[in-house]
Amino acid sequence: MHRTRVRIVEDALDANNTIAAANRADFDRHDVTVLNLMSAPGAGKTSLLERALAEPIDGVRVGVLEGDVQGSLDADRLASLHVPVTQLNTDSGFGGECHLDANMVRSALSELPLAEIDLLVIENVGNLVCPAEFRVGEDARAMVCSVTEGEDKPLKYPLMFRTCELVVVNKLDLLPHLEFDLDTLLHHIDAVNPAAERILASARTGEGVEELRGWLRALAERRVRAPA
Amino acid sequence: MHRTRVRIVEDALDANNTIAAANRADFDRHDVTVLNLMSAPGAGKTSLLERALAEPIDGVRVGVLEGDVQGSLDADRLASLHVPVTQLNTDSGFGGECHLDANMVRSALSELPLAEIDLLVIENVGNLVCPAEFRVGEDARAMVCSVTEGEDKPLKYPLMFRTCELVVVNKLDLLPHLEFDLDTLLHHIDAVNPAAERILASARTGEGVEELRGWLRALAERRVRAPA
Repeated sequence: MHRTRVRIVEDALDANNTIAAANRADFDRHDVTVLNLMSAPGAGKTSLLERALAEPIDGVRVGVLEGDVQGSLDADRLASLHVPVTQLNTDSGFGGECHLDANMVRSALSELPLAEIDLLVIENVGNLVCPAEFRVGEDARAMVCSVTEGEDKPLKYPLMFRTCELVVVNKLDLLPHLEFDLDTLLHHIDAVNPAAERILASARTGEGVEELRGWLRALAERRVRAPA
Repeated sequence: MHRTRVRIVEDALDANNTIAAANRADFDRHDVTVLNLMSAPGAGKTSLLERALAEPIDGVRVGVLEGDVQGSLDADRLASLHVPVTQLNTDSGFGGECHLDANMVRSALSELPLAEIDLLVIENVGNLVCPAEFRVGEDARAMVCSVTEGEDKPLKYPLMFRTCELVVVNKLDLLPHLEFDLDTLLHHIDAVNPAAERILASARTGEGVEELRGWLRALAERRVRAPA
C-alpha cells in the first residue's frame, strides 16, 4: 500500500519535470526569464510586487502570472500597474490544488504575452510546502518570509528555504512590535541555505524594494546564478 | 491524463474517509473528543495552545498530537505544559506531506494515551489548503487566522474557513500597527461561513484565551455542534 502510494507520487513528479522542461524551452525560445515566487499565505508577495513594479524597471518588461486557489483578488490589485497580469486558478480539482505545477503553468502559456515581456514573475499559491516540490519551468526561485511568522520557519519548512535563490524577509516595519529576533531567523536560513541571497524589506515603508528591483533586473539579465 | 489524475484523487479521499471513520470509532470507544486545529504557517496555533493549556481546564484532561513536516519544535514548546504531547512528522514522503491525513493519524493511535485524556487537540501542518480536504476522525475543526495575514484570506482559502466550527482571530495586539480592518475580515468570514464561532485573541496578551478555554471545555463536553 505504502509503496504504491510513493510510486504514484514519483510518477507525478517525473511527469511534472518533463512538462517543466517543455515550459522552460518555450520561455527560452521567447528569451523570457522566469521567477517562481512563493511564500506562506499573507506574507506579502503581492504587496511587494505592487511596490517593486510601481515604476518600470530599466530595460526589463515584466509580466505576472497569478496563481490562486480561486478568485482574482491579487490580479485585480496588480491590474493598475500597467504590466500584463494573467490569472490562473487551481480550484478545478477537488478542494483546489495547494500549488502550481508545470502542467497548470503550461495551460496558461497561450494566454501569456511572451513576445512582449523579458521577465515573467509567477506568484505561486500561498503555501510553504508543496510549491517547493514542483518546478514549473522557472529560471530562479524566490520566497517571501514575514517576520510575523516566527523565527522557526526555515527549520520547519526547510525544502522551501533550500530551493530558493533569494529570501525576502518582509514586514520589517513590525519588528518593534514583535517578540522576534531577526538574527535568529537569519541564522536558521544560514543553517538550511547558506547560499541564498537575502533582502530585508517592508512592502509598507518601501525598505528593500529598490534592492528587490535590482535583483529582478539582474535576474532578467541572467546575472543570478542558476538553481542547483 | 487529466481524468486519470482526478480519479486517483477521489480514490485517495474515499480511502481517507474510510480510515477517518475508523479513527473516529476508536476515539469514541475511549470517549475522547478530537479537535483538528489548522492555520497558515506562523499564525499562532502553538502559542495559543501554550496559553490555553498553561493551567488545567476544569474536568478536561487534554492531550496534543503535533503534526509537522519535520522536527519537533512545537512539541518541545508544549512539553512544559504537563499534558501528553505526541509528535507526528509527515516527511517520510518525498518533500514532506503538506497536511495530516487519516492514515497518518491512525499510525499515531497506538502512541496516544487515549485512556488518560478527554480531549485530543491535533495541531495540523501549517497550510490553508490541503488540511481542510482531509478529515482525520475529528469531532470539530478550528482554525487560527492572524490579522497579519490580511483581510482577504477567507475569500482566497474558502474551504478552510467553511469547514471550521471556530475561527480564532489571533495577534490582535498588533492591530494598532497594521493597515488592517477587522470588520472587513469578519465580513469575509460571514460571507463563507456565517455559522462559525469567532474568538478575537492575542496569544501574547492573553486576550481571548479564557474564551478559547471555555470553547475547548464545551467541545470536550460535546456541547459544540457537530460539523456539517
